[in-house]
Amino acid sequence: MTNFKVGIIGAGPSGLAMLRAFESEQKKGNPVPEIKCFEKQDNWGGMWNYTWRTGVGKYGEPLHGSMYKYLWSNGPKECLEFADYSFTEHFGQPISSFPPREVLFDYIQGRIKKSKARDFIQFNTVARWVDYLEDKKQFRVIFDDLVKNETFEEIFDYLVVGTGHFSTPNLPYFKGIENFPGAVMHAHDFRGADQFIDQKVLLIGSSYSAEDIGVQCYKHGAKSITISYRTSSIGSKWPEGIKEKELVTHFEGSTAFFKDGHSEDFDAVIFCTGYQHKLPFLPDNLRLKSKNCLYPNHLYKGVIFNDNERLIYLGMQDQYYTFNMFDTQAWFARDYILGRVSLPSKEERTADINKWMAYEKSTVTGADHVDFQTDYIKELISLTDYPPFDLDKVADMFKQWLHDKEVNILNYRDQVFTSVVDGTEASIHHTPWMKEMDDSLERYLDEVTLDDEELMKVNNY
Amino acid sequence: MTNFKVGIIGAGPSGLAMLRAFESEQKKGNPVPEIKCFEKQDNWGGMWNYTWRTGVGKYGEPLHGSMYKYLWSNGPKECLEFADYSFTEHFGQPISSFPPREVLFDYIQGRIKKSKARDFIQFNTVARWVDYLEDKKQFRVIFDDLVKNETFEEIFDYLVVGTGHFSTPNLPYFKGIENFPGAVMHAHDFRGADQFIDQKVLLIGSSYSAEDIGVQCYKHGAKSITISYRTSSIGSKWPEGIKEKELVTHFEGSTAFFKDGHSEDFDAVIFCTGYQHKLPFLPDNLRLKSKNCLYPNHLYKGVIFNDNERLIYLGMQDQYYTFNMFDTQAWFARDYILGRVSLPSKEERTADINKWMAYEKSTVTGADHVDFQTDYIKELISLTDYPPFDLDKVADMFKQWLHDKEVNILNYRDQVFTSVVDGTEASIHHTPWMKEMDDSLERYLDEVTLDDEELMKVNNY
Repeated sequence: MTNFKVGIIGAGPSGLAMLRAFESEQKKGNPVPEIKCFEKQDNWGGMWNYTWRTGVGKYGEPLHGSMYKYLWSNGPKECLEFADYSFTEHFGQPISSFPPREVLFDYIQGRIKKSKARDFIQFNTVARWVDYLEDKKQFRVIFDDLVKNETFEEIFDYLVVGTGHFSTPNLPYFKGIENFPGAVMHAHDFRGADQFIDQKVLLIGSSYSAEDIGVQCYKHGAKSITISYRTSSIGSKWPEGIKEKELVTHFEGSTAFFKDGHSEDFDAVIFCTGYQHKLPFLPDNLRLKSKNCLYPNHLYKGVIFNDNERLIYLGMQDQYYTFNMFDTQAWFARDYILGRVSLPSKEERTADINKWMAYEKSTVTGADHVDFQTDYIKELISLTDYPPFDLDKVADMFKQWLHDKEVNILNYRDQVFTSVVDGTEASIHHTPWMKEMDDSLERYLDEVTLDDEELMKVNNY
Repeated sequence: MTNFKVGIIGAGPSGLAMLRAFESEQKKGNPVPEIKCFEKQDNWGGMWNYTWRTGVGKYGEPLHGSMYKYLWSNGPKECLEFADYSFTEHFGQPISSFPPREVLFDYIQGRIKKSKARDFIQFNTVARWVDYLEDKKQFRVIFDDLVKNETFEEIFDYLVVGTGHFSTPNLPYFKGIENFPGAVMHAHDFRGADQFIDQKVLLIGSSYSAEDIGVQCYKHGAKSITISYRTSSIGSKWPEGIKEKELVTHFEGSTAFFKDGHSEDFDAVIFCTGYQHKLPFLPDNLRLKSKNCLYPNHLYKGVIFNDNERLIYLGMQDQYYTFNMFDTQAWFARDYILGRVSLPSKEERTADINKWMAYEKSTVTGADHVDFQTDYIKELISLTDYPPFDLDKVADMFKQWLHDKEVNILNYRDQVFTSVVDGTEASIHHTPWMKEMDDSLERYLDEVTLDDEELMKVNNY
């Protein structure tokens, strides 16, 4: 039975994976339900759809994008590759293992452009409010057409939420920050390192944002980078010019004071303090409430909302795996919606969730986390017809990558890996990452190797 | 009859005026309806409640505040004075005519602190969605308790919307801006001039934000200020270091190109391109859609929504008058809600709205706009028991102020005016505005006059 309606909120990697999952089913000649997808931004790609704006978008909605100029993948592309669409299929040639944002965006688009997915997506449209109609087992969703400034209503039998959770800054207060004279921003609003050339930059936080923004600012000419951590340092072998410090206690003017008693003047402060799960359009009884973790509570198989079987969440986990995890989730969600997955009782689901949460609790190292998410995806794949791929090899690549970062945070992006999807060995990029100042697709695919002198010209350095 | 419920959204100057209007009625011993007010921020004062944050607030809601460090009133305080609570009553002494933000915030709080208004306000709570229940003539409002991350529902017979319209940036795109290397922000996210010391700053826009941010950056040490206007220049007698240019056509790297063919390099771009009326929590049939103007369409007497008599809007106009206008609107709204104002037919209301809109259309100069808003407020006062004050004198002060700004944009804030509420002549501030770098309440009320040398010390200049 497919005479029902599925609503998808968000056309980022998760939402697109959902559309792709149904498409692959349709291609087999099987019937699929009516599908509509709604996207706040003016294009698909979610986070990968770069914007120069900060704060709120053109129509005043909180901005989705947290990416910046010069953002290069911080994990090997071989660890996120779609199992049904390899990088080599897309680019027609081997490329390096750590491509810049525009290149990954192109890849994401490549697969979906070949389908009719775009016809199912209404852009510039935000989900405003959802009511669950108990009697009909349906969702009444109010959308806001941002261009027309008009609201409208849609009814769905299943609702798929793929709105991401790296868009709403978590921004703690530090005493005196309100009087800091220089630029103060959250990583979410960081749009490029040039603004910080010759500046002493303080980053607060010790996760991916701090690590990458720190290295970016260093690469592009900041005078110094200080990374202030709360509980544990990143612990890379930092080059001269980057250092880690214990947590800031407070500010006086442009001076930051640290737990160890040390104080120092800065020109700018960037909060790399993470993101909140924020789902303002959902009422209490449908709203996922979670910190960033590998197995949020209340999601059976990480996907089906335990308090309402008609509600699906995609991509709400912290991520080692990304695109390929969203795919396996979407394939599972599709099969579930099509009635091929039989749902155990709520108690059994709760027990299953608890089992996974206990497993996550037992993890300690980065390698443990990789293994955890590998196991999670293995299970999802076992439940669907998503093309299997060698997950153990991918896990090994993740561990190699974790090691590479420890050895040299400045050149781990020059390492190469081999695709488990089609066996392609990544090429060595024509320019070492630390010398490559141009992150455009055009420059990336340019085969000419420039020598140092030419590079200086190209980069106006 | 007062056995009904009134919901107020927003505890800024408009929402507080509404609470105050009911309070003054209650003080007379008259019955008032049940009232609840909901405020997104953690304190009252709306725009005057300064925040160091930008983009979104602590809980990820679009940030209300557009104010910045060193913001001083850009209009005479005598033109916004509450008719029932003078500045002299609040401060116990005459003060200057152009106080800094913190001083005005203190004044706003002074009146309302004396009431029990705070008990009626639920802070950190945002209106998420409103349904109008036709059969019951009631509003079902979904609120989101941001601290608890929980939604809840309230039912009201009348809904008063006082959420302001200077919070959602209007941010147009200019070709090449995505590659501008320096800071790019909307005035909404400008938090102080220090960040721009020694920088060449480009401001796009020609209204109050551009004028004031330009002068602030000049005062605090920017290298140069260029103000780029679309249709007409501000036309002040700018000092050396500030200039006006025609509109930017596009950017290439850090270079801005202007309509007149000139091009120039900049370190930072601040968009002073105004704000949008944004009411995301209201459905189409209740949502006010308007550009910033003196008489938005669909509001009878600028207050009662013409398509739904139970819906009240406060403060949705462009503003010469501010606090006192919100007061007169709130007093009128209160009397209407209490059944003392008889509402003419919808056709008559539409005709009345059209009359005012035609009047606005006939205005040309700043003086015309002042006269328009003076006439509007005169009419509102004639319909209520708000304490009358000499509006013609206030209009004259506005016109004098417009003239003062033309003569010298750098010292118009040193001029003094006389209160029409209690006749107090403003004092001359102990320090000329251009030399006063400290905008704190403490410093402002300090009676000691410092000489230039001492000033240098105080300001670390």
